[in-house]
Amino acid sequence: MLEELAHIGRDASTNGYVRDAWSAEELELREWFRGEAGKRGLDTREDRNGNLWAWWGDPSTEPGVVTGSHLDSVRQGGAYDGPLGVVSAFQAVDLLKQRGVEPGRPIGVACFTDEEGARFGVPTMGSRLLTGMLEPERALGLRDDHGDTLAEVMARAGREPYRLGRDEETLAHIGTFVELHVEQGRGLVEQGAAVGAASAIWPHGRWRFDFSGEANHAGTTRLEDRDDPMLGFARMVLEARAAAGRHGVVATVGKVRVSPNNANAIPGLVSAWLDARGAEEGDVRALVAELSEGAEVSEESWTPVVDFEAGLRDRVAGAAGGVPVLPTGAGHDAGILASAGVPSAMLFVRNPSGVSHSPHEHAEDDDCAAGVRALADVLEELCR
Amino acid sequence: MLEELAHIGRDASTNGYVRDAWSAEELELREWFRGEAGKRGLDTREDRNGNLWAWWGDPSTEPGVVTGSHLDSVRQGGAYDGPLGVVSAFQAVDLLKQRGVEPGRPIGVACFTDEEGARFGVPTMGSRLLTGMLEPERALGLRDDHGDTLAEVMARAGREPYRLGRDEETLAHIGTFVELHVEQGRGLVEQGAAVGAASAIWPHGRWRFDFSGEANHAGTTRLEDRDDPMLGFARMVLEARAAAGRHGVVATVGKVRVSPNNANAIPGLVSAWLDARGAEEGDVRALVAELSEGAEVSEESWTPVVDFEAGLRDRVAGAAGGVPVLPTGAGHDAGILASAGVPSAMLFVRNPSGVSHSPHEHAEDDDCAAGVRALADVLEELCR
Repeated sequence: MLEELAHIGRDASTNGYVRDAWSAEELELREWFRGEAGKRGLDTREDRNGNLWAWWGDPSTEPGVVTGSHLDSVRQGGAYDGPLGVVSAFQAVDLLKQRGVEPGRPIGVACFTDEEGARFGVPTMGSRLLTGMLEPERALGLRDDHGDTLAEVMARAGREPYRLGRDEETLAHIGTFVELHVEQGRGLVEQGAAVGAASAIWPHGRWRFDFSGEANHAGTTRLEDRDDPMLGFARMVLEARAAAGRHGVVATVGKVRVSPNNANAIPGLVSAWLDARGAEEGDVRALVAELSEGAEVSEESWTPVVDFEAGLRDRVAGAAGGVPVLPTGAGHDAGILASAGVPSAMLFVRNPSGVSHSPHEHAEDDDCAAGVRALADVLEELCR
Repeated sequence: MLEELAHIGRDASTNGYVRDAWSAEELELREWFRGEAGKRGLDTREDRNGNLWAWWGDPSTEPGVVTGSHLDSVRQGGAYDGPLGVVSAFQAVDLLKQRGVEPGRPIGVACFTDEEGARFGVPTMGSRLLTGMLEPERALGLRDDHGDTLAEVMARAGREPYRLGRDEETLAHIGTFVELHVEQGRGLVEQGAAVGAASAIWPHGRWRFDFSGEANHAGTTRLEDRDDPMLGFARMVLEARAAAGRHGVVATVGKVRVSPNNANAIPGLVSAWLDARGAEEGDVRALVAELSEGAEVSEESWTPVVDFEAGLRDRVAGAAGGVPVLPTGAGHDAGILASAGVPSAMLFVRNPSGVSHSPHEHAEDDDCAAGVRALADVLEELCR
């Protein structure tokens, strides 16, 4: 079923995926979602924030058990991060039907919008808006690389951006949320298990560093007359790596924007995005504080540690067949919902190389099938 | 007359200009050039490489004296770099006509295409193609930031890219070339002169450094498992500056391209462009050699030192009123023509701040008028 999506947004030169929120590719993926839901007789709704919900049963009568993930991608990402959770959700529904299960509660399949933040820089945008963790005013003013705001982009897609924000009605439908996701490290490889459950999500954040200087001619400006922001930026990159080692966290500068970005001009401005995560919030905060010299720093996102609720976690790990429990450094919509008080859990599917956010991301078919069976078992247990 | 162009390609948020070769903005500037030539009864021709030539007199009877510059811009550049030379050329023609001069040789006004290389990365493209210093096959395959080749872009503008290359017929029309340009340093400010003549152009080049690594997830990839090309790139930026100081040259990293450029992904590839120039070729070469560790380096352009022919230089400086003579670190079409054996010279107009390739680039109106008078005097002398 994942193969049906394989052509959408694939860059033939790299085999990487580009599936920005609200792009033509992502709108095509939404249509696919509606089609799959329709085939199964599920009732699809789009909430005010652009998240999709396909229901087996009526969640207005009783909160349901929801599973799913997202369909957008980082730029040049892999085929599994996001879509595996949505595809597995539909396949788990199929399996429950084959088993003749009559769920005691409604079951929902969810697709969250803009989980990766590739376009507007804020990850898990759909779940943050849904839960009120992101102010609609801030979201609407975010701009993509072309200078278009989220408000403009949503309006062009026929949506009503002024309706963004915390959505009590939709939240009331979610009794429990279980997200299945490809693992993004090698934890399950080391444990020799196809499937695992999440214990916690590390605290993590994203900061924008603006280094300002004076744009000038690369050939005629003496070294001593230069105010070249590329130098401060380069020092920050190297210091971030050194500081991450000292603090026992990870730190990454993965996105850079240079203005004017001419080979023959000293830049006037270099903006760089720092992603930092670790087991301890204090260590992450300390790293960012050490790097803030010489730049204007703004926090674009911050997610405290998420410890998934232990009772639900153990019930999920047990229902899935007694799978291992492990933490992750990756943020997920399940973490946002958990932070907002929605009982949430996660299942991971083994990733042989551990590589993710890359065209080399992979999961074996057998492991994906084991993930679907585990998810179906968990849904059956939670619907009892 | 420069004000007539002030709105074309101006970014209202910065006051900087974006006038890429073959963009809608640059095509509009070409139309303006044709219009100005037509008003003056000059005969405009576009050569096979896209350079424009407006003739007073017939250069097929006798090689002419040509003046002019370019109309394209670096991104976020100023109003003077390029257009001042073209506008001054038309105004010098006006002045000669007012003076009742009957030129003894044809006079041409030139507009070279893609002098800055903002779009395809190779500066002075029009004069390099004209003189055969750039292979047409290489030029046609160059890609802009959208992945479009020069061949595609020229074809869309109705041109015939297969005709690119050394153009003997056009070269035969150029007896002498004099380019007027805003100064891009503070040499004339220090000498207290409104106008100067060029002695030499420093040797200069542009190199692309590709740092390859492994794209991976920013949150889940351990520091020790990373192959992050941003680190090698950052080291190169800092080493380039230090090495430039040691060698007494200037070196600039002004353009960077990160792939995939996601805030939450370790990059797979960082490409950076190094611009290096200095009085001595050996010093520039030594700097580049020292930086080449850990990257794949390709030379995108190299221009040896240009010593403008002394006899012509002194004749120009004398005719312009005995103006000072000074070298420059900036490349120009006049330098390319000189390298190809066309007798060439340059006039500079004072730049109070020395800032160039920036919206803050400036020249006073009085100095621009002095530049026009000096250029008219030079043309009158050279047409004798």
